[in-house]
Amino acid sequence: MKKPIEQCFSVPFRYQVHFTEKVFHRSNPLFASLLGDACPKTLFVLDKGVSAAHPELAGQIQAYAEVHAGKFKLPCPPLHVPGGEQVKNQQAWIDAILEATHVHGIDRHSYLVAIGGGAVLDMTGYAAAIAHRGIRHIRIPSTVLAQNDSGVGVKNGINAFGKKNYLGTFAPPYAVINDITFLQTLDDRDWRAGMAEAIKVALIKDPAFFRWLETNAGKLAARELTPMMDLIHRCAELHMQHIANGDPFEIGSARPLDFGHWAAHKLEHLTGYQLRHGEAVATGIALDTVYSTLKGHLHQDSLARVIGVLAALGFDTYVPALEQPEILNGLEEFREHLGGKLTITLLEDIGRGIEVHEMDKGLVIQAIEQLKALSTTSETLFCHAN
Amino acid sequence: MKKPIEQCFSVPFRYQVHFTEKVFHRSNPLFASLLGDACPKTLFVLDKGVSAAHPELAGQIQAYAEVHAGKFKLPCPPLHVPGGEQVKNQQAWIDAILEATHVHGIDRHSYLVAIGGGAVLDMTGYAAAIAHRGIRHIRIPSTVLAQNDSGVGVKNGINAFGKKNYLGTFAPPYAVINDITFLQTLDDRDWRAGMAEAIKVALIKDPAFFRWLETNAGKLAARELTPMMDLIHRCAELHMQHIANGDPFEIGSARPLDFGHWAAHKLEHLTGYQLRHGEAVATGIALDTVYSTLKGHLHQDSLARVIGVLAALGFDTYVPALEQPEILNGLEEFREHLGGKLTITLLEDIGRGIEVHEMDKGLVIQAIEQLKALSTTSETLFCHAN
Repeated sequence: MKKPIEQCFSVPFRYQVHFTEKVFHRSNPLFASLLGDACPKTLFVLDKGVSAAHPELAGQIQAYAEVHAGKFKLPCPPLHVPGGEQVKNQQAWIDAILEATHVHGIDRHSYLVAIGGGAVLDMTGYAAAIAHRGIRHIRIPSTVLAQNDSGVGVKNGINAFGKKNYLGTFAPPYAVINDITFLQTLDDRDWRAGMAEAIKVALIKDPAFFRWLETNAGKLAARELTPMMDLIHRCAELHMQHIANGDPFEIGSARPLDFGHWAAHKLEHLTGYQLRHGEAVATGIALDTVYSTLKGHLHQDSLARVIGVLAALGFDTYVPALEQPEILNGLEEFREHLGGKLTITLLEDIGRGIEVHEMDKGLVIQAIEQLKALSTTSETLFCHAN
Repeated sequence: MKKPIEQCFSVPFRYQVHFTEKVFHRSNPLFASLLGDACPKTLFVLDKGVSAAHPELAGQIQAYAEVHAGKFKLPCPPLHVPGGEQVKNQQAWIDAILEATHVHGIDRHSYLVAIGGGAVLDMTGYAAAIAHRGIRHIRIPSTVLAQNDSGVGVKNGINAFGKKNYLGTFAPPYAVINDITFLQTLDDRDWRAGMAEAIKVALIKDPAFFRWLETNAGKLAARELTPMMDLIHRCAELHMQHIANGDPFEIGSARPLDFGHWAAHKLEHLTGYQLRHGEAVATGIALDTVYSTLKGHLHQDSLARVIGVLAALGFDTYVPALEQPEILNGLEEFREHLGGKLTITLLEDIGRGIEVHEMDKGLVIQAIEQLKALSTTSETLFCHAN
């Protein structure tokens, strides 16, 4: 019989995350400078939440395209889609985007630009990844969470069969543009929620960044823009370094960036997505930090510091959905999505995660009870932590 | 404003194409040896055309799983889907596969195995690529075309909006198994059609392989198995080398492996997929070879050799659909799928392609007329070529 043929190659990927303000102000050259010289078709998808807060945006894009005629062209006005998880739950939205790429002859050298929160970027990024096996995709994240975490990474997806991100791909964007203008109109919950991923990445990777978060928690909670820009830049950088140095397309089973996420995904589902992703992550971080202490991995003082920062930023470390028995199913669902062995990241110090392959369900329940008790005394802990 | 963050990484891919016979005979260790030690769930998708020709196959797989219990488990009997382009045209088939992955808890470390022709592999491969952002996918191609070309590469997809492969991804398989058993039950058209890709890759890359095809055309037409195994091995090898040394995920615009394909895709569409892909490719090769001669790139003697081999293998170099005016739209549709500049491969010698970015439509029509005239005299040419 013939010998096997061995195939072996590497595919290089490269993109930049840019920082700017008023990206579609006529005098801002950034966007037009990214598109090359072939005057490509550029289809925009806008999060309705963003257009409601920035009613001038669609007109600004039109005017920007006129000023920069010759750099790119709009085949049609921006498409509007709802923000939040619903846009990933209803197949009709992605179908509408795909149909628009077909109708307007968007090809692999054209651009599909998404402006919005993480859900709109996930859905649009998925459409861009599968149409023609990949259209160039530019992301303009409008929330703290999307600017420092999901929007700068390589994943996209929609929900199916009641499972989060059941359908999706790994597909690096062509470019990301973080515009601080969009952050100023966020409501307090969205401003806060995005900071959960910064706490997470600091806890598993960067003790100095965690100390910085402790020091700046008051200013961040008071919505000061300068420390928020610092937070987003450092969090995005750590997130991207992790992707580049690790396993970008998740061929293995470990996923340390998902610290706190097994419970978070389940809490989002159990609350019918009333809880924001970042809010759920904050609770998930609190849970796995308490668990780390109960299991003897982490010192009690470190726990107090984690709960202290979460409280100082205004997060609830306890939510009633934690007490629904289904919460424990989150462990198996988390394992199934990655496949292979259950792999959960815990903490052994501030700034240092460890992987475990088993979770003691009795101890998880004990950790939940402890969070419930703590929630009435977090003020005390916060004072202790500072 | 903050400095841009630069992201840059490479993702390595590796897989093998194995050659065997009677892959699910209980004593054949190959398949079970590929799956690792975790006894993964393994969901099978079978082309109904293959099960019709091999009614014992589903039972054999069941028996094989019992003999190799501990190596893998079947969560359910194989799913049957129709073969041919219809399975890529109707969304219901991929939806059924995706639902099965959900119902049976197929995760990223489970396997989705497809046995069938290129269309079934393309559709199942696409399902495997998007569920959980990627389930391990093993391809067992059942036709000459799939064993030497589409099945050993990195592309998948389905048709949408009347456009071929409008939705899909680049996603290398976990492994490919070429089983000669399946070739013996192919009808003559499928046996022949798959050889078009061998002629194509020989013409653009390997003059020695083209001479070998000339020498063995008679045996191949007479359905001798040994030269067919040689043909498949060499064609697959050239195809895979091209992918590895080129642009595996087609980030640029060139696609030399698509020699002869702009017309082929259109001919398939214009004949309502009555023409097999390989048959259409043979006609497309003939057309672009005549065009290469008319344009002065290729010597007349080389044209005679190309037409001679195509005729010796039993291909029609002329089909009436060539004369439909829509055939010329194939050029723009081909450009749109890749995006960027039109890039067509022509021949400047046997074994050496060249890229051009313009096609003279008047000369294309002249080439079609010449093919029509040749079709009545190919016997003469064939004698000349030998």
